[in-house]
This record gives sequence, C-alpha cells and structure tokens, in this order.
Amino acid sequence: MSQIPNTSNDALVSRESYLRALRRVASSVAVVTTNGPAGRHGATVSAFSSVSADPPTVLVCLRSDSRIARAVAQNKKLCVNVLSEERSDIANRFAGRDDGSLHDRFTGIDVCDVQDEPPEIDGSTTFSGRVVSAVTSGSHIIFICEVGMVHEGDNSPLTYLNGAYHFVTPHATLPHDSQICRSV
Amino acid sequence: MSQIPNTSNDALVSRESYLRALRRVASSVAVVTTNGPAGRHGATVSAFSSVSADPPTVLVCLRSDSRIARAVAQNKKLCVNVLSEERSDIANRFAGRDDGSLHDRFTGIDVCDVQDEPPEIDGSTTFSGRVVSAVTSGSHIIFICEVGMVHEGDNSPLTYLNGAYHFVTPHATLPHDSQICRSV
Repeated sequence: MSQIPNTSNDALVSRESYLRALRRVASSVAVVTTNGPAGRHGATVSAFSSVSADPPTVLVCLRSDSRIARAVAQNKKLCVNVLSEERSDIANRFAGRDDGSLHDRFTGIDVCDVQDEPPEIDGSTTFSGRVVSAVTSGSHIIFICEVGMVHEGDNSPLTYLNGAYHFVTPHATLPHDSQICRSV
Repeated sequence: MSQIPNTSNDALVSRESYLRALRRVASSVAVVTTNGPAGRHGATVSAFSSVSADPPTVLVCLRSDSRIARAVAQNKKLCVNVLSEERSDIANRFAGRDDGSLHDRFTGIDVCDVQDEPPEIDGSTTFSGRVVSAVTSGSHIIFICEVGMVHEGDNSPLTYLNGAYHFVTPHATLPHDSQICRSV
C-alpha cells in the first residue's frame, strides 16, 4: 500500500452530510458470514465491492470494533451472501433485529454449512474465500478476499436506498446484454 | 495494511464463474472524475463503496493500467459522481462508447468545473476529496479517498445488474426510514 502524506489542509465534510449523501446511493444488501477458530458469525452489510477478476477478488468494509470484524480477522475466511430480493427478513435478522430474543442468528436459516467454512445462505449469490489482506481506514477495516467459490442466486438482489429496501427493475428500452460498466 | 501470508493451497474460482456471479449483484453506476497535474479525466465504474463515516471515506477500484487510474494516482484527488437514474447516456459516454467520435468525454456535459478540482456532474450525488492511500490488489488499485465535499443528487440513482441498467423501486410494505444496513 502506498500511503500518501497529508500535505493538505482540506477540511472534511461533516459526518451528517456524508451520511445524507450516502443514503442516495443504492447497493445490494449482503450478509457477511465467517467460521473457524473464532466461531460462526454473520452480519448484514452494504459496503461490499468487487475488486478484480484477475485474480477473482472482493472486499467488504466492517467496523473495527464489531464482533464480525474481530471474527473475520481471526478466521481469515469469509463469505459475502448477496441476498435475494424477497429476503429482507434475513437482512433484518443479521442486522441484529432479533438479537434480543435469539441466541444464534443462524437459527432457522437455510445454509450450506461445512465445518469451519463460512456458511452460505441458500438462494443468495455468494462469494466465498480467503482474506488476503486487511487495511485499516478510520473506524473500519477493509477486508480483501480472494474468491475460491461462487454460487449464483435464484433471483434479483435485495437493494438498499434512502434507508429502505428496494427492488431493481430493468430499463425497458435498453438491451439486456450491454456490458458497459464493469471494469474488471 | 496487514498482509496475511499465503499458507493455503485453496484454488480460486475461474474468472468466468466469478464474472457470472458478479452480474447478479446490483450497484449504483458512478463516474469517477479527476483533475490536476495529469489533466482532467473521467470513467464509468461500478466498483465503489463507502468505507467509514469517521472520517468520511469512500473507495473506488480501478484497473492499474487504465488512464483514469494513472491520472488519479498523479492528481491525488477524485470525485465519485453517482449518476441519476435517467443519465445512462453519461454512463455510456464515460464508459468510452463515444470515444471514436469525441475528443473530450466532457464535451456537452453539464459539470461544476473549478480549476484543478475534480469535475462534479450536475444532478449526480457526489463525493469529492483527496486520495489518502492506494492499495494494489491483482490487476486493480483500490483508491481510498477522504471526502471534503458532497452533493445530494436530484433523483434515484442509475443501477446496473445483469449487464443492463436498472431503476430501483421501494418495497411498498416497509417503512421508508428503517435504517438497517449501513454500518458506518
């Protein structure tokens, strides 16, 4: 990593303004799962991105002080489960909505659960692999993960915008195979 | 950055399988712009993520051998312009669709263009700031940028899924202010 020295006095935008602008960005909703020496954990995130196809690599950003970040750092493996559009219940579950009444967030959730491997949530599009580096940035850690296994989900992904879940629907006038944006 | 030594023989998924799975992930479409010693440049990307709100930080992943990556590395400033849902024409333009007939991708595009600052595309939700680190990962560079200025766009964002542009529409049954997913 090249660290670029801070030679600027540029002021940063306020936390509140940043979060308001961020609400206008749509993203797929994913549950990051992990398993290994630190045990089985899962949490809902929306800060997920592809990095490259050479080699196949993804990243997720997790709060440094969260249980999921500590578990991923120790287990060194994770799975990004991009949820299907009808599974907002799973998004809520892994965001901690049921933690008061539930000992284990995985209870009653259909997963492919091989010993010591990150659980894959049925019906999701999954990217599973090994953490190859971890970059601290402010309050968060960026975990970079080389992808050993993928699974294509059944449906369109659940999407998050303006603090609420959304569907995605195609622009009717555009060809369905115009590969324009992915620079992988 | 902590580099984790490769002590595993885990095989990676094929490039083709990875890209097929990635087509099932929806993301907002953004144009990354930059300006400075390397000149004014812009390119369409979908690999963009929030990192943290403390401090306000975003990241973008760009191919190391691309003009936009070289320009951002030299200018050390960038703006992420999350396009409005009706501006697929701008997405196509900055993906290079008109490069054969156009000398400058910015021709005819309404931008806020202050000298040596990254242009902000009118109507977009923008995150503009200074690159604080650059992490090489395979064929790409992850540029981490502290955000000095934001602008909230007018409309819902343009979204990309399955190789085509999409709209996002709310789940009718959910409250519009249920802040669940963003762990910033």
